[in-house]
Amino acid sequence: MLQELRTALGDAAVITDPDILAGHARDEAALCEAGTPAVLVRPGDTAQVQAVVRIAAAHRTPIVVQGARTGLAGAANAVDGCILLSTQRLDRILSIDPVNRSAVVQPGVVNADISKATAEHGLRYAPDPGSWESSTIGGNVATNAGGMCCVKYGVTSEYVLELEVVLADGEILRCGRKTVKGVAGYDLVRLFTGSEGTLGIITEITVRLQPIPRQALSLAAVFPSVSAAGAAVTAITAAGLVPSLLELIDQVHLRAIEEYRPQGLDTDAAALLLAASDSGVDSDLDEIARLCTESGATEVHQATDAMEADMLLAARRMALPAVERLGAVIVDDMSVPRSRLAEALDGIAEVAKRREVTVAVIAHAGDGNLHPNILVNREDPDSVAAGQAAFDDIMRLAADLGGTCTGEHGVGLLKRDWLAAEIGETGLRVQRAIKDALDPTGLLNPGKVLR
Amino acid sequence: MLQELRTALGDAAVITDPDILAGHARDEAALCEAGTPAVLVRPGDTAQVQAVVRIAAAHRTPIVVQGARTGLAGAANAVDGCILLSTQRLDRILSIDPVNRSAVVQPGVVNADISKATAEHGLRYAPDPGSWESSTIGGNVATNAGGMCCVKYGVTSEYVLELEVVLADGEILRCGRKTVKGVAGYDLVRLFTGSEGTLGIITEITVRLQPIPRQALSLAAVFPSVSAAGAAVTAITAAGLVPSLLELIDQVHLRAIEEYRPQGLDTDAAALLLAASDSGVDSDLDEIARLCTESGATEVHQATDAMEADMLLAARRMALPAVERLGAVIVDDMSVPRSRLAEALDGIAEVAKRREVTVAVIAHAGDGNLHPNILVNREDPDSVAAGQAAFDDIMRLAADLGGTCTGEHGVGLLKRDWLAAEIGETGLRVQRAIKDALDPTGLLNPGKVLR
Repeated sequence: MLQELRTALGDAAVITDPDILAGHARDEAALCEAGTPAVLVRPGDTAQVQAVVRIAAAHRTPIVVQGARTGLAGAANAVDGCILLSTQRLDRILSIDPVNRSAVVQPGVVNADISKATAEHGLRYAPDPGSWESSTIGGNVATNAGGMCCVKYGVTSEYVLELEVVLADGEILRCGRKTVKGVAGYDLVRLFTGSEGTLGIITEITVRLQPIPRQALSLAAVFPSVSAAGAAVTAITAAGLVPSLLELIDQVHLRAIEEYRPQGLDTDAAALLLAASDSGVDSDLDEIARLCTESGATEVHQATDAMEADMLLAARRMALPAVERLGAVIVDDMSVPRSRLAEALDGIAEVAKRREVTVAVIAHAGDGNLHPNILVNREDPDSVAAGQAAFDDIMRLAADLGGTCTGEHGVGLLKRDWLAAEIGETGLRVQRAIKDALDPTGLLNPGKVLR
Repeated sequence: MLQELRTALGDAAVITDPDILAGHARDEAALCEAGTPAVLVRPGDTAQVQAVVRIAAAHRTPIVVQGARTGLAGAANAVDGCILLSTQRLDRILSIDPVNRSAVVQPGVVNADISKATAEHGLRYAPDPGSWESSTIGGNVATNAGGMCCVKYGVTSEYVLELEVVLADGEILRCGRKTVKGVAGYDLVRLFTGSEGTLGIITEITVRLQPIPRQALSLAAVFPSVSAAGAAVTAITAAGLVPSLLELIDQVHLRAIEEYRPQGLDTDAAALLLAASDSGVDSDLDEIARLCTESGATEVHQATDAMEADMLLAARRMALPAVERLGAVIVDDMSVPRSRLAEALDGIAEVAKRREVTVAVIAHAGDGNLHPNILVNREDPDSVAAGQAAFDDIMRLAADLGGTCTGEHGVGLLKRDWLAAEIGETGLRVQRAIKDALDPTGLLNPGKVLR
């Protein structure tokens, strides 16, 4: 098989060095096992991807696709004996079409590089996962990534117009279209988006661009309790306001950020709510400020200029790296109906108390999407066990509140059982039927999403 | 079979009167055959739908689901010997959740009734197909219906959060979620949305609501040529403006509207462009007006108040009924990349000339979605043949311009061959694999979408 791969891709694109393979065995998920890959391949075009799939199929060897391996659910982790297929060399922006507001890109392009390339046309690629400066668009599509602007602008799947996909049988499928609207046939683009490499290998993506929004006005509101901040989010949503950002940062994260890179954040605050509005209507942010105060904010600070607004955003982006300095972090991800945000926050606090672990929370609060980050000491088995127990409790909490086990990170290896519990027997059977229809021999990322 | 249906549903819900059956044999599509149904059933709840599916499966009798039969592609047309399953009695709004901005509705609820019921909460259900006062939400979801506000707010699929579906084996599937975000498993909601009754029977829908937008400011711009109006649309889009409505009405429609219900429209205009902006930023509409003038508009009239704005919208909504008074209309539907709108309009004019038929055009111009309405004399076989030829030419034109054979009406019976040409052999094979995975015996709406 290795010889066939070398013939098809060239020697340099077929890597078997055990150290390199070991370094590529996993993504950034905690708690997930990873197998030992047989080989890492770096195809340079769609035809080479197709060749890899055909060789893999002939040898009944599974393929795991990897972008930047910034995933948080183990979807990109190796399985034993697999071919790791890296999209790293598929990193070109093929075209930009300003009038139709779209760009054709290869999967290995880094998210932020798309907006950089389209800025001269006054356009951007909207979805902005935390990893946007390192994660690739292919991985974003495979996981249907979210981000901070999603509260107003929606997630990745709303920005994918067309896909080129190499199927499990090596055929090339083009699906979707360059038009804004279209209803010809089943929506295959949406089916592949979020399928975590289990249905096909995405080799080209036409993304939808959008006009760069007006400069946002921002504010930071200080709350004496996390649930008061949650109540403010509910009030803002219920008032029909559509902020372009609505993020919650709890005290653990605030203190971690201040220790990491001091910003002058109020570390006595139980929670900070960051809000922004780019509606162009100045009174919208005033209204948001008023609702924060009514919900119990002790201080509401409106940014006076763009630089100050950017600093608030930068502080938020620092939250995960800052908290990771405190020790090992089990990054969790859950979504609840917006009305139950305060209950979710209270519930997480109870879990932390019961399991005697620190659970720090950042949340895309306007979407009801929370990241309870569980701090554990990886050297201490009791701490890891308590963290794992807290993780399970939090997943149960999400279900109890009518929510979902993953708002934006995906299922991967980490949440297969929670997915099964969430969608039930019939749901699982339908998901499996679709997997089997597109990948009957289980070649593509086997054991991910579905056991 | 009839006896089993009567036992399950009650006598009144099982109709075999040949006149009633004949009256229910087809939707509003021209050019489509319709078979003779065996029976029309009107289940009153999900359990009764389930019972019908199980009886149908046992007797290997196909099921065709019908809402208000306002479809324009024959998807709801009877096939010989089928059970017609009407959603008419499944017409309840089950709940409204203002904080989470969602409503749970049965499929037989009329589109406009949702917004009426949610208005007291300051919310609306956005997608507004032309038929919104008669078409049902179930049909809207089954066809992934579009409408006029979609240029800013997107189509039906962006407003479906959750579905309850009776599968071909009679099992009940719940898919999707009540949360704004969620990536647990393959996106089944999107798969069923737009599947035209071929994958399952939708029995409950959680729709996403949105705050009622600010009152829109509107304008009407008069153009000396259709392609100048097309150029204006391209200029507006390229400028990064996001109108809440951008509709084109050609001279045939203008004159038909004036004959039907005089509005004072300029019937010497080659085309009228209607635009609206609800951004809250007054200068946006001024900017649209300026771009219309620069593109050659001879007159731009800004509505001075809400009533005048509503009248413009009402005139647009009258276009199809007005033109239908001129004779039989083959309503077509195509979408092109926005940059090619002017070419599409020119191409349609050429087709009309070559085939010696009148092709009147209305367009959701901001989306690049055109409805070339072909006027024929149904009594004259030559006229019908010319109309059919023009239809085929227009479909070829859509493909040549990088567009799609259907922007919002669906495939049904009417466009199966055009779908096949558009998505190619691999695309068709994948579509078929999904159909077979979910409906292996071909029970649900057989012969629709896919031959």
